[in-house]
Amino acid sequence: PRSYSVTLLPGDGIGPEVVSIAKDVLSVAGSHEGIEFRFREMPVGGAAIDSIGVPLPEETLAAAKESDAVLLGAIGGYKWDGNEKHLKPETGLLQLRAGLGVFANLRPAAVLPQLVDSSTLKKEVAEGVDIMVVRELTGGIYFGKPRGFGTNDKGEDIGFNTEVYSASEIDRIARVAFEVARKRRGKLCSVDKANVLEASMLWRKRVTMLASKFSDVQLSHMYVDNAAMQLIRDPKQFDTIVTNNIFGDILSDEASMLTGSIGMLPSASVGESGPGLFEPIHGSAPDIAGQDKANPLATVLSAAMLLRYGLGEENAAKRIETAVMETLNRGFRTGDIISTGMTLVGCKRMGVEVLRSV
Amino acid sequence: PRSYSVTLLPGDGIGPEVVSIAKDVLSVAGSHEGIEFRFREMPVGGAAIDSIGVPLPEETLAAAKESDAVLLGAIGGYKWDGNEKHLKPETGLLQLRAGLGVFANLRPAAVLPQLVDSSTLKKEVAEGVDIMVVRELTGGIYFGKPRGFGTNDKGEDIGFNTEVYSASEIDRIARVAFEVARKRRGKLCSVDKANVLEASMLWRKRVTMLASKFSDVQLSHMYVDNAAMQLIRDPKQFDTIVTNNIFGDILSDEASMLTGSIGMLPSASVGESGPGLFEPIHGSAPDIAGQDKANPLATVLSAAMLLRYGLGEENAAKRIETAVMETLNRGFRTGDIISTGMTLVGCKRMGVEVLRSV
Ligand SMILES: CC(C)[C@H](C(=O)O)[C@@H](O)C(=O)O
Ligand SMILES: CC(C)[C@H](C(=O)O)[C@@H](O)C(=O)O
Repeated sequence: PRSYSVTLLPGDGIGPEVVSIAKDVLSVAGSHEGIEFRFREMPVGGAAIDSIGVPLPEETLAAAKESDAVLLGAIGGYKWDGNEKHLKPETGLLQLRAGLGVFANLRPAAVLPQLVDSSTLKKEVAEGVDIMVVRELTGGIYFGKPRGFGTNDKGEDIGFNTEVYSASEIDRIARVAFEVARKRRGKLCSVDKANVLEASMLWRKRVTMLASKFSDVQLSHMYVDNAAMQLIRDPKQFDTIVTNNIFGDILSDEASMLTGSIGMLPSASVGESGPGLFEPIHGSAPDIAGQDKANPLATVLSAAMLLRYGLGEENAAKRIETAVMETLNRGFRTGDIISTGMTLVGCKRMGVEVLRSV
Repeated sequence: PRSYSVTLLPGDGIGPEVVSIAKDVLSVAGSHEGIEFRFREMPVGGAAIDSIGVPLPEETLAAAKESDAVLLGAIGGYKWDGNEKHLKPETGLLQLRAGLGVFANLRPAAVLPQLVDSSTLKKEVAEGVDIMVVRELTGGIYFGKPRGFGTNDKGEDIGFNTEVYSASEIDRIARVAFEVARKRRGKLCSVDKANVLEASMLWRKRVTMLASKFSDVQLSHMYVDNAAMQLIRDPKQFDTIVTNNIFGDILSDEASMLTGSIGMLPSASVGESGPGLFEPIHGSAPDIAGQDKANPLATVLSAAMLLRYGLGEENAAKRIETAVMETLNRGFRTGDIISTGMTLVGCKRMGVEVLRSV
């Protein structure tokens, strides 16, 4: 059988519970498709701070880099919220993204027919929404220098960060986005604030230049404030969205909430080469951690993205996605997506039901 | 009678149409309350680029500064979209905000009972939403230096901007926000990205420090990505939101779209002293300009904010707001907010109907 190594990073809160389910689903789906997995579990985030003293231990990054793909649960929690920056769980996640060079973050936000009622949007607005946000993940204001604290000429404290993009950083994320759009409905909307920011002006210029190489894709541009409105006014106008790190952080979360079921949404982060990083978009939900209440489907669907975008195993990916849809069709729901007439189950039972369908 | 000078800046697109209505409404409401206005109309935005060659002529800024309050219509349009930065209409608006020192931008987003069906949110989610976004308007990445274009050490083009806040810039906007919250429902949510950005860490620290002086206000903090989600999931959880310039740009537009009627939404921008700047939050809508289709109510309600926040004329402000509500109750609607059984009217007729109620 084909054999792959997968680094599992359970992380904090509900992370361990949902990763454990996704691991089982990967194993079983793999066995049906002639794929074998070697799993290695490593600490990250708050768990790593507590056990090793840093949010991304060297051994964790090394193991991740050596493997074929990385599956992350969730990181963070109230416990570490007051920590200094280098001891925040979030810092570990940013170091992991940078360390793996996964500059392209793909975040699908699709309203599933089975869950259309979970959306706070009117049915006719939510129905059929199917958006892919392609977010730049290793540049921009998240990583730009100079950054830090200082004093200004009046002797006052200041805090500062730099939003910066180079031509090649823009080109490589735009290329990924054009390719994603081409495989979807052929529409790409680039979101920026080019009426105010120089970093956005360069962004718009480079994206526009690349468009000639993708004449089958219809490119448009939108200001970020307008995009935040249009996502609510008429989300179906969007197919693929490409944007910078911070705008992508905001807009992908906004888009995901349109679906009303963020417990269902996966993400993939990939680079030029090397292993990709796959994780649910939800957080660590410390309030329900360890209570067998978490929805594991976002992580299970992240495992499907791992197969598709990380390993090129399309059949196994489809097998998992189909199993999730079947499980929903059979009426099983965790608390976050429950509705009248459906069967409320916990995290483990949901896992068992997906395994039954795989 | 008390007498005030008001600078009118009609600007571009539908700007002149809606400002002309608001001017009449101000005059009539004023005459009922013993207030007299001296109006002076000046060019700004694309109109100023075409007639004078710059988006904010010196005489316009001077006139604005000398007056008691400034009422702006809208700026921008396709015609000037390709212009270089110093010749963009938007640049004129930013220069005007900076020139007037109006660092506090108040953007209410309330769902009116008469228009709850215009929202794309389910009725039970939209009903009763009443949010005030207090956006920092003259600092942050909009104005931070260094900014511009350059080359990096690989010789590649780069575009860069600086997000920077000083302690006093944060303190003064936070103080306004606490005071606004105190007069509303006593809840203030400060939105930042303090898990990643140093500028946000200082923001959170200073806002937290100020809280002790406003013990009657309940302060909470939220990350911007989560805020973008929560606005859709459960907008009624918010009373007053305070945030930086760019996050405020995005979130206030998102919040406004929750109401489904951005043609109704006003804004006020005020500083420590000097005239405030009052404008509808909608844009210049070049596609319907000059066709008597624009909804003038956002500008009329901005005139009410001008009376309240700019001149301290609460009675006249209420008179205008009541007139707008009565006009809606009498069933008059412009195209953007029309629904079954209501009477479709144009911009001018809507103005006449409001005047009837003033
Ligand atoms: C936890 C945080 C640093 C992270 C981000 O801002 O990128 C998260 O919000 C996300 O979107 O994955
Ligand atoms: C036109 C533009 C510069 C402006 C801004 O970004 O502030 C607008 O979007 C607004 O919110 O008033």
